[in-house]
Amino acid sequence: MAAQLDFFYFIGSTYTYLSVMRIEAVAAASGIELRWRPFSVRTIMNEQNNVPFRDKPVKTRYMWRDIERRARRCGLPFPRVPGYPVDPDELANRVAVVACEQGWCPQYTRATYRAWFEHDLLPGVGDNVQRVLTGLGKDAEAIVALADSAEIRGRYDAETDVARRLGIFGSPTFACGSELFWGDDRLEDAIEWSQEHSA
Amino acid sequence: MAAQLDFFYFIGSTYTYLSVMRIEAVAAASGIELRWRPFSVRTIMNEQNNVPFRDKPVKTRYMWRDIERRARRCGLPFPRVPGYPVDPDELANRVAVVACEQGWCPQYTRATYRAWFEHDLLPGVGDNVQRVLTGLGKDAEAIVALADSAEIRGRYDAETDVARRLGIFGSPTFACGSELFWGDDRLEDAIEWSQEHSA
Repeated sequence: MAAQLDFFYFIGSTYTYLSVMRIEAVAAASGIELRWRPFSVRTIMNEQNNVPFRDKPVKTRYMWRDIERRARRCGLPFPRVPGYPVDPDELANRVAVVACEQGWCPQYTRATYRAWFEHDLLPGVGDNVQRVLTGLGKDAEAIVALADSAEIRGRYDAETDVARRLGIFGSPTFACGSELFWGDDRLEDAIEWSQEHSA
Repeated sequence: MAAQLDFFYFIGSTYTYLSVMRIEAVAAASGIELRWRPFSVRTIMNEQNNVPFRDKPVKTRYMWRDIERRARRCGLPFPRVPGYPVDPDELANRVAVVACEQGWCPQYTRATYRAWFEHDLLPGVGDNVQRVLTGLGKDAEAIVALADSAEIRGRYDAETDVARRLGIFGSPTFACGSELFWGDDRLEDAIEWSQEHSA
């Protein structure tokens, strides 16, 4: 059986940019089967009073500089510090749930992060979700309606609950069963663990 | 000129265990000149309301598990989750300032972290500072008196101020001039940067 890794992430997490853009190549090179699992880390962080950046200008300045350097190491664009915060209604994330169900989640998530980091089109702000969907050749209106449905909201909440029960508190988190690896800089550790512990 | 790296750290930071134990070997292998610079990250974190673990049991549980795994990767002991918090009066850190002045800071800091992580002797608690100093063949009473002096307190505060002005907010931080790298997992990035940017 191929080793499996669950990629729990939230569109709106800044470091998640790095993972979204590179995880498919890393997983493929390692023969790992990947499951993209968008969830509401915002809900969990609020529950846990885990507020790493808000009202912390010194740490926030470092975070952007660090992402800029790490992006350069990964060969990823970082033309400027992108706008923040994003996705006030978590629409961009709920669309990711729809995309998971329909099998185009990686493409959608990458397009969303590229729009944000390369073109400063903030996820879930204005009509940016619709623009990304249209760019992917999707029926934006129909997808957004689906993302607003009780069914998709319920699935999003259920995935958040799975994450909560696993002890996930941040994005990105890579889970191999109950073993958690938090942060883009733990992706290689997670891959290694998955390979060592696959059946 | 050899590339230089400033190692800003605080005895009491948990992830700093990894850096304290491995940084000399990593720096030596890379031809980097290292300056050990103990400072009060606690003061800065309180100023910035940066409280990553207190009252955050889920994140704290992950932190220990992550350190355990990273220690294993580095070949470092991690027999159990050590006691926490430590060094209520920052005596262990002020002794590190004395040790810096006298040229035995790395040995002292490693011995302090070994006592904490291997033998659960919490830094700055009870007579643990004295025990570590005695184990190093030092006159514990004289060193502690020096660490309590206005001069050493002043130097400790001055180093904290240097860190504050650089924009340092956590331990360990590796600084190459004004370029900051935070966290044990950024040590290799810092080393690489130092080599690329040395005169």
